[in-house]
Amino acid sequence: MKVLWLFAHPEHRSLNGALRDVGLRSLKAHGHQYRESDLYAMGWNPVVTGADFGHDGVDRLRVAAASKGAYLDQTLSDEVLVEQEKLAWADTVVLQFPLWWYGMPAILKGWFDRVFVKGFGYGVIDRRTGRTLRYGEGKLAGRRAMIIVTAGAPEATIGPRGVNGDIDQLLFPLTHGTLWYSGITVLPPLVVSGADRLPDLEFTRVSQELERRLLSVPTAEPVPFRYQNCGDYDEDLVLRPDVARCETGLAAHIAGN
Amino acid sequence: MKVLWLFAHPEHRSLNGALRDVGLRSLKAHGHQYRESDLYAMGWNPVVTGADFGHDGVDRLRVAAASKGAYLDQTLSDEVLVEQEKLAWADTVVLQFPLWWYGMPAILKGWFDRVFVKGFGYGVIDRRTGRTLRYGEGKLAGRRAMIIVTAGAPEATIGPRGVNGDIDQLLFPLTHGTLWYSGITVLPPLVVSGADRLPDLEFTRVSQELERRLLSVPTAEPVPFRYQNCGDYDEDLVLRPDVARCETGLAAHIAGN
Repeated sequence: MKVLWLFAHPEHRSLNGALRDVGLRSLKAHGHQYRESDLYAMGWNPVVTGADFGHDGVDRLRVAAASKGAYLDQTLSDEVLVEQEKLAWADTVVLQFPLWWYGMPAILKGWFDRVFVKGFGYGVIDRRTGRTLRYGEGKLAGRRAMIIVTAGAPEATIGPRGVNGDIDQLLFPLTHGTLWYSGITVLPPLVVSGADRLPDLEFTRVSQELERRLLSVPTAEPVPFRYQNCGDYDEDLVLRPDVARCETGLAAHIAGN
Repeated sequence: MKVLWLFAHPEHRSLNGALRDVGLRSLKAHGHQYRESDLYAMGWNPVVTGADFGHDGVDRLRVAAASKGAYLDQTLSDEVLVEQEKLAWADTVVLQFPLWWYGMPAILKGWFDRVFVKGFGYGVIDRRTGRTLRYGEGKLAGRRAMIIVTAGAPEATIGPRGVNGDIDQLLFPLTHGTLWYSGITVLPPLVVSGADRLPDLEFTRVSQELERRLLSVPTAEPVPFRYQNCGDYDEDLVLRPDVARCETGLAAHIAGN
């Protein structure tokens, strides 16, 4: 594997830091290559501004149009180009972060906001058919991603009927709306719950699980999100009536539901 | 009303900027007070670091513990204190942002990451009962929030069975997991879809709708998210079997489902 490891925790002397060390050590021991984007260590700026697009303001241009222009003209800021290059190199993306307010820390959200510009992460058109390539297709297709997320919440509370909502659905804007949208195949996340009071014994178990999950990335069964262009959606991109008939929630976008 | 208006778009000469002007003008004309957090104009830094908590690193302390300590010791950074003070003043919060990768722009996500520290936005304990106050209860209870969100996606694609997932469920980590979690009553969002190609006539309609929605905030029917402590959840904070029996998705946390 060629792994891009995105790490978004402020403190290396943390559970997240320890798990990252386990993961990277394991990749190395098994002959895999990796590159890291340790966002806090890099001082990553997560705020989209016109400076990314070669001018001072976003101007009257919309952000999307401005970002596509800069992408095509190759005038995106260097910081963004470096991250795009890492992603182009990788066949695997690991995203590791603590769950803050049921989502990514801002520093990671802003990695996507800045790096996944129009023409790269979205707004990719198939020249032959004129179709927009998204949800399973796009420039980033062929890659696999796995999320490693720590949550203070106990396991039951982020389960299917837990008070916080099901973790798979809480992560949907990232797994489906960002990764799968841009063509990346998504594996089930590794969720470490009760993370702010994890006993030592549990750390050993989690480390082993992490290693197992990491090394099986190339062959593991992905989340079977539906493809946009394989007949499940009608011309308005709405699920056809006979698809996932009894499901109105986000799970309807997973094949088999 | 005393409104805190959170604005998270980089460009004032945008649809979002124009809608904000309409909204603030309307509040003023009707004798309401408002204060603004125009995050881009403020140069808001959305990244949680130890500097917020009165020391250089987050140290071995967990972020949550460090933030609660600084909150109780009143050593949080000035930037954070100013935002907490605005929120304490307000009875109404308007959150206005463009939907980027099916969530908030990083600059707004990081407003919550930094401002909603432990002891303020969460981790609030009722001294009398020892219960943790969340989901409908907490220090921020009594306030109402409304989201104004623009999305490039056409309306059908962010509807209940649209390819991008239902907008109410995509916003769940913010509406339920952040606002309602910290005690704030949430109104249905005002969603402006197809926002990157809105005809002039539509702008007039949206402006009128915005005005109507804004002025009715104090009396409008909120989203009936379930209270944590009113019997719907068991001791593990899982929905009791007889509650929302046929619903496994996020909608199960709304009363009446």
